[in-house]
Amino acid sequence: MTDGTATPGCFITFEGGEGVGKSTQVRLLADWLEGQGKDVLVTREPGGTPGAEAIRALLLDPEGTDWTLPAEALLFAAARADHVARVIRPALARGAWVICDRFIDSTRAYQGGEGALPDEVILQLHGIGSGGLLPDLTVLLEVSPEIATRRLHQRDGLASDRIGGRDAAFHARVARRFAEMAEAEPRRFSRVAGGVEAETVHMAVRACVTQRLGARA
Amino acid sequence: MTDGTATPGCFITFEGGEGVGKSTQVRLLADWLEGQGKDVLVTREPGGTPGAEAIRALLLDPEGTDWTLPAEALLFAAARADHVARVIRPALARGAWVICDRFIDSTRAYQGGEGALPDEVILQLHGIGSGGLLPDLTVLLEVSPEIATRRLHQRDGLASDRIGGRDAAFHARVARRFAEMAEAEPRRFSRVAGGVEAETVHMAVRACVTQRLGARA
Repeated sequence: MTDGTATPGCFITFEGGEGVGKSTQVRLLADWLEGQGKDVLVTREPGGTPGAEAIRALLLDPEGTDWTLPAEALLFAAARADHVARVIRPALARGAWVICDRFIDSTRAYQGGEGALPDEVILQLHGIGSGGLLPDLTVLLEVSPEIATRRLHQRDGLASDRIGGRDAAFHARVARRFAEMAEAEPRRFSRVAGGVEAETVHMAVRACVTQRLGARA
Repeated sequence: MTDGTATPGCFITFEGGEGVGKSTQVRLLADWLEGQGKDVLVTREPGGTPGAEAIRALLLDPEGTDWTLPAEALLFAAARADHVARVIRPALARGAWVICDRFIDSTRAYQGGEGALPDEVILQLHGIGSGGLLPDLTVLLEVSPEIATRRLHQRDGLASDRIGGRDAAFHARVARRFAEMAEAEPRRFSRVAGGVEAETVHMAVRACVTQRLGARA
C-alpha cells in the first residue's frame, strides 16, 4: 500500500461503472491467487464492516434524510475509515492480498466533479479518515457505453426506458472521470478492456498483476 | 455569522462542560429576546435534525461499532452539516436569532487535543461539512471544578465514586481547552462565570449580548 507504511501485503482494487464485470473479475483473481497458496481477502464497498453497513443504511434509507453533498461525503469517508481500520489494514499487516470491489476512486468518480465536490476535498477526507491509504494496483475495467447499458438492464431486470437520457449521460460522465484518474496516475492504474469473455478479461488482469506486482505475485 | 456570508440573523452558541448551566441560560436568553419581539430559534447539538439524530444514535449505540477517532469526527461533522444546512442557515437567512446549546467548540474541546485529533483537522471537517460557519457570539459558561462535579452527580443521580480520578481529570482538561479557545478568539467568545444564581448569570449573559451584538439586540 502507498501511504508511507510499508507492509508485506498487497492491496488491489477494481473500479469501473456499473455492469463492467468487476465482481466476476474479483472472484477470478482471488481464485487464481488462492490457487498459488496466497492468503487472500476479498471485500467490497460501500460496506465491509457492520459499522460501515450501518452508515450505508443511513445513506440509502428511502425514508431517511436527503443528505447534502458534503454530509454524504463525510458519511462515506466515515464508512471507509471503519472498513480500512478494521478489515483492510489488519489484513495487509498480516501479509494478505486484499482485493476490494470499489474503493476511493468510486467516490471520486460518482460524487466528485463538476457541480459536485472537488476531488481535493474527497481526497482530504480520505486522508483524515483512512490515512490516505491507496491501493498498490487499481484495475479499471472499461466497456463501451452500449455494453454497459445492456448489462445494467439485464442486472436490474428493467425495461430500457428506465435508463433514460439523463442516466446514459451520467454513466458516460462517470466512465470519463475514471479514465481521467487512470491517465493522471498511470503507475497505480491499469486499464483493462471488458465486454469480452470473462476468462479473456481475467488473463489480461493476471498480466497486469504479474507485471505490476511481479516480485510479489 | 462569520463565514463571509452576511445574513440578517444572529447566531449565538453556549459552550462549557457538563453541569455549568447551559440549558438554563439558553432558555433565559431566548425568553428575554422573545420578550423583545424577536424571532428566536433554540436548538442543540448533537442532534437538531432527524438525520443528525440518526447519526447520533450510530455514535452512541452501546451495541454498535467502537468507532475510531477519525471515523467519529467524520460522523460528528456529517451530523453538524445536516443541522447547519437544514435548521441553522435557513433560520439565519430569514433573520432569526439562533441560540444553540453546544456547537463546533464542544467537538474541539471533547474530541480534540493531545492524543486525539488536531484542532486543525476538526476545523477542516467543519469547513467541508458546514462551510466553516462560526457563531457571532459564543458564551462560555465556567464554574469551578468542585461545582461542576457536584452538579454532574445531582444530574446523573450517581454516587460520587462513579466520577473517579480519571473523570475529574478529563473534565478539567475539557474546561482548560475551552478556556484556551476563548483566549485565542476573544472577539467571538465571552466568558461568563456560572456557579451562582441563574438569574445573576443571565444578567451577565444579557450584558455580553448587548455589548457584542448591541446594534442588533
